[in-house]
Amino acid sequence: MAALDRIPADIQCAQDYESLAQSFMDPAHYAYIAGGSGDDITSRANRSAFARWSICPRLLRDVRQGSTALTLAGLPLPHPILLAPVAYQALAHPRGELETARGAAVLQSPMIASTLSSHTLEEIAEQAGPLRWFQLYLQPQRDVTLDLVRRAEAAGYGAIVITLDASIQLPSRHALRAGFKMPADCIAANLRHYPQPAEPPAQAGESRIFQGVMRHAPLHADLEWLLAQTRLPVWLKGVLHPDDARSLQSLGISGLVVSNHGGRTLDGALSSLTMLPQVRAAVGADYPLLFDGGIRSGADIFKAIALGADAVLIGRLQLYALSVAGALGVAHLLRTLHEELEATMALAGCATLHDIRTTTLLRAD
Amino acid sequence: MAALDRIPADIQCAQDYESLAQSFMDPAHYAYIAGGSGDDITSRANRSAFARWSICPRLLRDVRQGSTALTLAGLPLPHPILLAPVAYQALAHPRGELETARGAAVLQSPMIASTLSSHTLEEIAEQAGPLRWFQLYLQPQRDVTLDLVRRAEAAGYGAIVITLDASIQLPSRHALRAGFKMPADCIAANLRHYPQPAEPPAQAGESRIFQGVMRHAPLHADLEWLLAQTRLPVWLKGVLHPDDARSLQSLGISGLVVSNHGGRTLDGALSSLTMLPQVRAAVGADYPLLFDGGIRSGADIFKAIALGADAVLIGRLQLYALSVAGALGVAHLLRTLHEELEATMALAGCATLHDIRTTTLLRAD
Amino acid sequence: MAALDRIPADIQCAQDYESLAQSFMDPAHYAYIAGGSGDDITSRANRSAFARWSICPRLLRDVRQGSTALTLAGLPLPHPILLAPVAYQALAHPRGELETARGAAVLQSPMIASTLSSHTLEEIAEQAGPLRWFQLYLQPQRDVTLDLVRRAEAAGYGAIVITLDASIQLPSRHALRAGFKMPADCIAANLRHYPQPAEPPAQAGESRIFQGVMRHAPLHADLEWLLAQTRLPVWLKGVLHPDDARSLQSLGISGLVVSNHGGRTLDGALSSLTMLPQVRAAVGADYPLLFDGGIRSGADIFKAIALGADAVLIGRLQLYALSVAGALGVAHLLRTLHEELEATMALAGCATLHDIRTTTLLRAD
Amino acid sequence: MAALDRIPADIQCAQDYESLAQSFMDPAHYAYIAGGSGDDITSRANRSAFARWSICPRLLRDVRQGSTALTLAGLPLPHPILLAPVAYQALAHPRGELETARGAAVLQSPMIASTLSSHTLEEIAEQAGPLRWFQLYLQPQRDVTLDLVRRAEAAGYGAIVITLDASIQLPSRHALRAGFKMPADCIAANLRHYPQPAEPPAQAGESRIFQGVMRHAPLHADLEWLLAQTRLPVWLKGVLHPDDARSLQSLGISGLVVSNHGGRTLDGALSSLTMLPQVRAAVGADYPLLFDGGIRSGADIFKAIALGADAVLIGRLQLYALSVAGALGVAHLLRTLHEELEATMALAGCATLHDIRTTTLLRAD
Repeated sequence: MAALDRIPADIQCAQDYESLAQSFMDPAHYAYIAGGSGDDITSRANRSAFARWSICPRLLRDVRQGSTALTLAGLPLPHPILLAPVAYQALAHPRGELETARGAAVLQSPMIASTLSSHTLEEIAEQAGPLRWFQLYLQPQRDVTLDLVRRAEAAGYGAIVITLDASIQLPSRHALRAGFKMPADCIAANLRHYPQPAEPPAQAGESRIFQGVMRHAPLHADLEWLLAQTRLPVWLKGVLHPDDARSLQSLGISGLVVSNHGGRTLDGALSSLTMLPQVRAAVGADYPLLFDGGIRSGADIFKAIALGADAVLIGRLQLYALSVAGALGVAHLLRTLHEELEATMALAGCATLHDIRTTTLLRAD
Repeated sequence: MAALDRIPADIQCAQDYESLAQSFMDPAHYAYIAGGSGDDITSRANRSAFARWSICPRLLRDVRQGSTALTLAGLPLPHPILLAPVAYQALAHPRGELETARGAAVLQSPMIASTLSSHTLEEIAEQAGPLRWFQLYLQPQRDVTLDLVRRAEAAGYGAIVITLDASIQLPSRHALRAGFKMPADCIAANLRHYPQPAEPPAQAGESRIFQGVMRHAPLHADLEWLLAQTRLPVWLKGVLHPDDARSLQSLGISGLVVSNHGGRTLDGALSSLTMLPQVRAAVGADYPLLFDGGIRSGADIFKAIALGADAVLIGRLQLYALSVAGALGVAHLLRTLHEELEATMALAGCATLHDIRTTTLLRAD
Repeated sequence: MAALDRIPADIQCAQDYESLAQSFMDPAHYAYIAGGSGDDITSRANRSAFARWSICPRLLRDVRQGSTALTLAGLPLPHPILLAPVAYQALAHPRGELETARGAAVLQSPMIASTLSSHTLEEIAEQAGPLRWFQLYLQPQRDVTLDLVRRAEAAGYGAIVITLDASIQLPSRHALRAGFKMPADCIAANLRHYPQPAEPPAQAGESRIFQGVMRHAPLHADLEWLLAQTRLPVWLKGVLHPDDARSLQSLGISGLVVSNHGGRTLDGALSSLTMLPQVRAAVGADYPLLFDGGIRSGADIFKAIALGADAVLIGRLQLYALSVAGALGVAHLLRTLHEELEATMALAGCATLHDIRTTTLLRAD
Repeated sequence: MAALDRIPADIQCAQDYESLAQSFMDPAHYAYIAGGSGDDITSRANRSAFARWSICPRLLRDVRQGSTALTLAGLPLPHPILLAPVAYQALAHPRGELETARGAAVLQSPMIASTLSSHTLEEIAEQAGPLRWFQLYLQPQRDVTLDLVRRAEAAGYGAIVITLDASIQLPSRHALRAGFKMPADCIAANLRHYPQPAEPPAQAGESRIFQGVMRHAPLHADLEWLLAQTRLPVWLKGVLHPDDARSLQSLGISGLVVSNHGGRTLDGALSSLTMLPQVRAAVGADYPLLFDGGIRSGADIFKAIALGADAVLIGRLQLYALSVAGALGVAHLLRTLHEELEATMALAGCATLHDIRTTTLLRAD
C-alpha cells in the first residue's frame, strides 16, 4: 500500500506503527527491517530486556512545570528522542530519508543521516532541520572517508557519529527465508561516485573473514586520524563493554551510543539495555551517553534514561512510521513517543529527565 | 444475556465468574473491564505475582473456633473482603451500583462507592448496608470536592477513600481494538449537575500532559485541605512506594490501600502484591492497610494477608458477578470468596487472620 | 475399554500408562484422578519440581553387585516402591483394590489399603501379599476408628498410616467441568455398616468450614489416643513442614510420608519434593521417611531418594496401570519402575540406595 | 529423497542442515537421530544451555592476523572442529562413514570412527585423511577389544577414544512412537566376525540391569589394562563430573571429552555445557579437553571454547549434512561452521582461540 498523506486513524500508541507497517511494506523488506541477524536472539533480547524492569509510581509529586528538555553535549533539545541512523530508507518509502528529515524537523529531533542513505547527505540536508548529524562508516580509502566528512561539514551536519560495531552484517534467517534481497536500485547514494578500491586476490590459506572482510575494519589509529581531521564533535556508536567505553572516552570522543546495532550484527550478543548501567558507571554521570536497541514506547524511553542514558535513538519504529505516512508518520511517531514519555513521567512522579535519572527501577515481577 | 435472577448453577469457585461474565456483557465492555492499560503488563503482573507464592499447610491445628473476623481501623468486620470502588458499573448491569450495594449488604462487606458511579451516592446509600464508604476523586474546583464530601457525610458514608494514582488512564490496547468506547449514556451521576470549569486555552510550547492533564492532579496541600474539611476517616488508595506510604501515614491518614489501580494507569508499574510487604514494613504492623490487585480466590486473600494486608478489595470479580446475577451474584461471590478463605485457613492451620499474618509464605516451586 | 488381560504391547516406560489409561477410563473419572484440586497448581508443581533437578552421571563405578534392597523401619524390602493409599479404586477398575493387591504382591511392594477403599480391608487382605498396610482416616466417633484398627490388626495389616492432610478435598475445576460426580455405587466399603453420627444443626453465624467440616479434624489428643490403642507401627502421611515433622517424630510415630496428597487438598500448597530435604534435615538421617507426589519414572524415584526419602509411594500411576490391565498392569508398572530405577542407578554409578542418598543432585539447566 | 551430489542452494547457516535433513531421511531414522533418550530432557538441555550465555562484542580489535589454528595434544589443527563418533551412519546415507571420512578430510577435521560403524574401520581409513581417530567400546572379551585396537593401529588411526558413558541406551520415546527400529541390515561392520560370547543364564533374583547389562561395563582395571596395550594416545569420552575428570587425568589419559552422549543415555543428566567450566577447573588450563553436546553454530563453538574447551565434536549436524549431500555436505557443513566461528571471533574481537579462552561470557538476558 502506498504511504498515506495523513496520520493514520487507528494508531493508539507508538508501537502500533510496528504492525501497521506490515500493510505498507514489501513483506521481504519488512522481514529484513524487523529482523536482526541469525535467529534474532539479540534483537529479541533487546526487547525482552525492557520487560525485566518495572516502574514504581510516586504520589503527589508536582509536575505542573514538567519538561522533557535536556542539554546534550552542549546542545539544547526539547526532548531526548533522536532518530537513529538507518541505511537504505528507500526500502520503506520511495523518498526515504528526505521524508524522515522533514518529519524529524517538525519535532526538533536530531536526525542522524546514514553513510548508506538512499539519498545523498546533501539532499537530506536540504529537507532537514538544523539538528542533523552524519553517521560515518570509515571507508577503505582514507581520502573517501575524508571527503565524506568534508561533505558533511559543508552540508551543515553538526556532528559525526562513527559506527564501530557492524563489520559483518547478514540479514536474519527469517528475512532470508522471506526472500529478502537488497533491490538493485537500492544504493548508497553518498558513495556512488567514489572509485571502488582494487582488492588484492585472496591468497591460499587466507580466511575470507580475517584476511577478507576484516581487512578494512577500523582500528584505534584510524579513529585517531579521523579525530584530527574535523572540528565537529565525534560520537561513537556501538559500544557495549564498559572497558571499550572508558577507552573511547579517553580518546576525546564527544559521546557514546550504547548499542548492538539493533541485534543486526553478532546474534548472541547481549541486549544493549543490560549493558547500559555498566557503561554509565564506567564513563561517569556527566559523560554524554545515548542508547538504542528495543525502544517501542515512552515507558521504554523512561527506563533507558533511568538506567543511565541521556537520550535515545529510534531505529525500527522510525522506518515503520516512514512507511506508513512518510514525513507525517515520522513526526507523529515522535510526537506520540514524546507524549508517552511525558505521561509515564507524570504517573511516575518525575518532572524532569534528571528526576528519571535518580529513579530506581525495580526488577519486574 | 440479561443478568440472571438466581445464583448460576455452574459456579464452582469465585473465579468462575470471570469466564461466565463473558456471556453477560457486551464484548467491548468486557474487554475494557478485564483489561488494564497499554499492553496489560501490569494487570497481568498483578495476577502472576500470586503464583509466585506457596502456602505450607500445617497439621493438627485446632481451628474449631476459627473465624475471619477483624477490626479494621476500629470497625468490626466479619471478614476481610471489601468491594473496591469501581466506576461506571452500568457497563456491567443496568442497575449497576444499586445491585452491588444490595449484594454487599448481605455479606456485610463494606462497599466503596466511586465518585464516578453510574448512580448517585445518595441512590446507592439507599440500597447499601451501614458499611459504606465513599471513594473521592479530588475535583478541579475545591467547592465541588467539598460538596461531594458533604453529600457523602449526609448520606451516611462512613469513610472517604481518596484515589491518588489515576491522573491518567487509558483503556488497554486490547479494549480499544475490541472497539471499546464509553457509551454516551454512561455518565458520572454524582457530577452531572456541577458546572464544568472553564479551562484556559493551551499556550504554545505547553505540554498537553504536564500543563494540561496534570494541572489539577492532587498535591500535598490539597490533601491537607481536605483532611481539615471532614471528620470522617480518610483513606488513601493507590500507594506502592514505601516512602509514599510513610509520608501519607504521617499526615494523619486513617489507612492506605496498596494498589496500582488494577493495572489501569501506568502500564509497566509493578504488581501491588510485590510492594505489599515493603509497604507494611514501612507503616508498622498495626497501621490499617488494605490491598487490591489480582485477587481471584480465597487463597489469594490468604496470601495478601500473609504478606501484610489487613483486608482486601475486590474489583474486577465484583463487576463480573454483578453482570451475571446482579445483587445475588455479588452476594454469592462474596460468600464464595469468604468460604474459600476459610477453607484455605483450615488447611493451612490458621484459625484467625492473625494466624495468617504470622504465616510465612514460601516462594512457589 | 475393558481392562486387558495381558500387559499392553506399547508401554515403553512407566509413564506411558498415564496416556494409555485415557482409553480405559471414563473421561470424567480420568479427569478426576489425573487432576488435583482447584486449578491444579499444586499437582503441577509436584511434577515440575522434579524437572528442576539433574543427575550427574559417574563413570567406572562397579555396580555388578547392585541392588535396590532396603530395610524400612525394620522391614526388609526388595525395592523402595510402595503403593500409595488411593480411595475408590472402583473408579479405575471394577475389581479395584483386589487387583491392585494381587499386582503388588507379585513385586513384593507394600500396598497401603485406603479407609475409603471400594472393597473391604478384609477382602483386600485376602488378595494381598504379606506386605500390606492400612491407611486410616480418623472417624468422628472414636469407637468406629478403633473398630477399623482392630479389623486391620485382625486382617494382618502390618502398619497403620494415618492421613492428616485431607480435611477438605474438592475435585479440580477441570474434573468438575468434565462432569465428574462420584458414582452412586462407588462407596467406602469399610464404613458401610457403621452408623452415621448425628450432626448438630448448624447455628446462626457458624462457619460451614470451621464449625462444620473441621469439627472432626484430628488433633494431637486424637493421635495420642490412637497410638495407645494399637501395637502396630503407626505412620503419618501428609507432612510438609519440618516443624510438624519434628513434632510428630517426638510423639513416637514410626515414620512419616512427605506428601501434599497429590495436590488434591490445598491448591497452592507447594510441591512435596521441595519440602523433602527440609523434612529430612528436621528428622535426622535415620528416621523412616517416605515420599509421594509427582513420581512418574525411575529417575524420579532416584531424585526423591537423593533428596532424602527412604522409599516412595506411587499414586496416580497405580490407578492408570490398574485401569489398563488390572493386577497385571499394576505388577508390570512396578516392575518397569523398578527397572528404570536400576538403570538410572547404573548410569549414575550408584550400586545401592545408600549410594543414591549420598549423591548430590544439581539444579537442572 | 536421495542425497544430493552438490551443496544445497538454500543453506544459509550450519543449523539449516537440521531442518533440511528431514527431507532426506526416513522419518523414523530422523526421529531416532534427532532424539535423545526418554523424554529428551537432556538433549534439550544441551541446546538450551547455550542460550543462557551471551557474548559481549569488543571494538577496534585488530584481527587481521586472525586464525583458528590450535595444537591439540601435540597435533596441529587448522580449526577446533572434530567429527564426533556416531554409530550406524548408514541410517543417514547408504555409504555412511565412507562419505563422512571424505568430507572430513577436505576440511582437515579429525574424524572419530565409531566401533559401531556401518563400514569397517579399514574401509573408512581408506577414505579418510590422516586425521583419523578410532572410538572404542570395550568389548566383553578382552581379546576382541585388543583385536580392535590392533586393527585401528594397523589402519593408521592416530588415537583411541574410549566411550564410557553409554552402558545403557534406549531410543527416545518420540523415536519409538515414530516407529524407529534398527534396520536388520544396519550392523556393526567391525564386530561382524567376532564370536558372540556365551552369556550365563540369568539366576533367580538377579537384576537384568545390575547383573545383566552392567556385567561387562568397563571398570578402572579394564582401563588400566587397555592403556598398557597400546602406544596410541587414549582419550576418554563421556565425562561430566569434575572428580571423574581428575581421576581419569591421573591415570595417564591423553585428554577428555566432556559429553553426555548427546543426551542419549541418562535422560535427566544435566547438559554437558553446564559441567564444562567445572571440568576445566578440575583438570587445569593446559590439559586437552574436548566438548560435545548441542553445538549448532559457530557462535556455539565460540561459547564452548570460552567456557573451557580446546575444541568441539560435531554429532547430529554431521549426520544431517551427510544425509543431505554425502561427503560434500559434511565438508560444506564443516566449512560453514568454521566461517561462522571466524565471524563470531571477528565481531567479538578475538583473533585467536586463546583470545576466546580469555573472554568472559555473560549470562544471557
